[in-house]
Amino acid sequence: MTTETARVEAFSDGVFAIAITLLILDIKIPTPAGGPLARQLLADWPFYFAFLVSFAFIGIMWINHHRLFTHIKRSDDLLLILNLLLLLGVTSVPFPTAVLAANLGQPGQRAAAVLFNATYVFIAIIFNLLWRYAVSRSHHLLAADADFAAAQRISRQYYFGPVLYLICLGLAWVSVAASLALNAGLACFFAFPPDFVSTRRAKRARPSALQR
Amino acid sequence: MTTETARVEAFSDGVFAIAITLLILDIKIPTPAGGPLARQLLADWPFYFAFLVSFAFIGIMWINHHRLFTHIKRSDDLLLILNLLLLLGVTSVPFPTAVLAANLGQPGQRAAAVLFNATYVFIAIIFNLLWRYAVSRSHHLLAADADFAAAQRISRQYYFGPVLYLICLGLAWVSVAASLALNAGLACFFAFPPDFVSTRRAKRARPSALQR
Amino acid sequence: MTTETARVEAFSDGVFAIAITLLILDIKIPTPAGGPLARQLLADWPFYFAFLVSFAFIGIMWINHHRLFTHIKRSDDLLLILNLLLLLGVTSVPFPTAVLAANLGQPGQRAAAVLFNATYVFIAIIFNLLWRYAVSRSHHLLAADADFAAAQRISRQYYFGPVLYLICLGLAWVSVAASLALNAGLACFFAFPPDFVSTRRAKRARPSALQR
Amino acid sequence: MTTETARVEAFSDGVFAIAITLLILDIKIPTPAGGPLARQLLADWPFYFAFLVSFAFIGIMWINHHRLFTHIKRSDDLLLILNLLLLLGVTSVPFPTAVLAANLGQPGQRAAAVLFNATYVFIAIIFNLLWRYAVSRSHHLLAADADFAAAQRISRQYYFGPVLYLICLGLAWVSVAASLALNAGLACFFAFPPDFVSTRRAKRARPSALQR
Repeated sequence: MTTETARVEAFSDGVFAIAITLLILDIKIPTPAGGPLARQLLADWPFYFAFLVSFAFIGIMWINHHRLFTHIKRSDDLLLILNLLLLLGVTSVPFPTAVLAANLGQPGQRAAAVLFNATYVFIAIIFNLLWRYAVSRSHHLLAADADFAAAQRISRQYYFGPVLYLICLGLAWVSVAASLALNAGLACFFAFPPDFVSTRRAKRARPSALQR
Repeated sequence: MTTETARVEAFSDGVFAIAITLLILDIKIPTPAGGPLARQLLADWPFYFAFLVSFAFIGIMWINHHRLFTHIKRSDDLLLILNLLLLLGVTSVPFPTAVLAANLGQPGQRAAAVLFNATYVFIAIIFNLLWRYAVSRSHHLLAADADFAAAQRISRQYYFGPVLYLICLGLAWVSVAASLALNAGLACFFAFPPDFVSTRRAKRARPSALQR
Repeated sequence: MTTETARVEAFSDGVFAIAITLLILDIKIPTPAGGPLARQLLADWPFYFAFLVSFAFIGIMWINHHRLFTHIKRSDDLLLILNLLLLLGVTSVPFPTAVLAANLGQPGQRAAAVLFNATYVFIAIIFNLLWRYAVSRSHHLLAADADFAAAQRISRQYYFGPVLYLICLGLAWVSVAASLALNAGLACFFAFPPDFVSTRRAKRARPSALQR
Repeated sequence: MTTETARVEAFSDGVFAIAITLLILDIKIPTPAGGPLARQLLADWPFYFAFLVSFAFIGIMWINHHRLFTHIKRSDDLLLILNLLLLLGVTSVPFPTAVLAANLGQPGQRAAAVLFNATYVFIAIIFNLLWRYAVSRSHHLLAADADFAAAQRISRQYYFGPVLYLICLGLAWVSVAASLALNAGLACFFAFPPDFVSTRRAKRARPSALQR
């Protein structure tokens, strides 16, 4: 049974919106008993850093989910289940984020960084499976007049996802700081549309607002 | 007064999305004071297990809610109230999940498993009532051109729900592990569309993506 | 500036859905350290009671909000602000609910019941203001072909709201139990459609599903 | 790639709705162990005050977001990213609110007020960037028949935002109370539609409901 995608998008929007908003709850509130407030606020930088990286990651994932579903026009049972697995990854993000924030600069920071990046590897793999399933012509989930060239550019960009996050994960053994810096950089990479990444034609076709 | 179902679906989507996302808050965050991080993370397996079972359960329930409302085209006062009772069950899930996670492997694990399965029995009963009320031809809530054969296949699949979860509940007295394993298995059963479960015709009509 | 109401409804649905789902977080999780689990679960009855009353209240309010916006077709600046005041009441509910749950059977239970009912008085007043503003013909917020007789029946039912919740509030000085019982009863009163309450004509026009 | 704005609005609605509803979680629940309940409730006024200011701020921001997107008809990649930055500000609000509530009347209240107002300065700047990007004719994001005069009145009102919140921030060094009073007043200023603020013509065109 195939149906349209309006409710899948609505439910996913809800999960993305909640997961991204819950992140702020991980930042502990300094109290007067803890000493001068300004100093406490500064000492909490790992919480802000972890919050920002995860916020960017979930936000960019939402942008990509939105981008995919401008192409996907129908859903079937397996797409629903793949989407649910993706949301499993998304709702999990607040947990590794909180673990990372609580352990940065502590003995457990390597294990925390591995857990953090492993979550992202999982999500990147599911994103690929979901997209590859949707674009496969035999499933008829794209619009009849879908732009298959654009879809293929998305596929090319996504190929990099699991590999790049695996590199982040491995890098954690060498340097937790380098691993997290690369992770933050990847969010920017996926924020850019695939046109920009793969061909740079978009830049010439219409002046990109990002360059001014 | 009967009205269309768009807002019922939107409100339900919101509740499902929030309940499924709040589950992650039940997993406690290990801190440096608690010993080596990796060991703490491994010791928390009951939290992950309870999280995964409840995530699957709410997710599959959402898929089924979505499936029902592709047939239901109008709502009336009693449907709203039945839907509200269903959402009462859904929003409750984080509580028995947290109780189970906190008591697995402890003296209270049997009581926790009973509470956990009792919630699911309640939800399965309400799901049946909601669906039976909606398909009853005298209420005129389905589309005029509804596929009554498909609706009946859903009815047949749902009959099993309350009984199967009651068996899970009873099994908790014999073995908590067996009870939870069956519970996890049931989520998979209800993830499959009723076509697949009752006739397997769908498999021949179009090659199922699940088999590749 | 008047605009359509789709986004007002979507935003309100979100707030209702979150407020109703957050209620479960107020129920504390029993741990093995607290003694036999079953006994702990039973001792927590005030939490379940407060949860159920507030769940019913928010759920019924959502049904009424939904009912109002099947009539309201346009929004303007003041309607947005009245709706925001209503949502202020709705998002507040988890707080008096938690205060009530923590103090039932304790010396502070009267103050908690007063706070609880005062929240409901506030919400009932705002609901009346919102509805009265919307139905006033000079504001042109209803559909051109609105059913003004049905709208008036809603008005009549809502008149009772602030008065009835004020009686609940006053009753708390005599008996906290009676006050809460009346409060729970009111949720049922407002769950019934205004047709049913004011004229009982609906019952004869089509056999009500509630009676079977 | 430009697309329509329905999902951007839905995702934003979700984030606004959750952020505004999470604020209530910052109010701590008095327990019997803390002394007479009524006295505890009164002593918690900083929490209610901070809750109300932030509720008003997020609510008014939502009204303005809604107002902007009645003009904006298309979204592109940069608009999505600017909107995400805006949501970053919105989801952050519960944190400075909780810090302010916990430190009002304490030595750290100045630092807390600075953090609180700094968040609002950030949000006001992003709101301006988002709007200025959207109205720029070269980006073709407004409807072809957009009311450019109305759009310009919005631009004029928004110019004040960053400056006014910066004044709030500076005022915190002189007086925390004055800073917060001005902050609360600003929420009212932005609640009024730009017509009302910049020309007062609306008042004569149709009798404003706010004056009766």
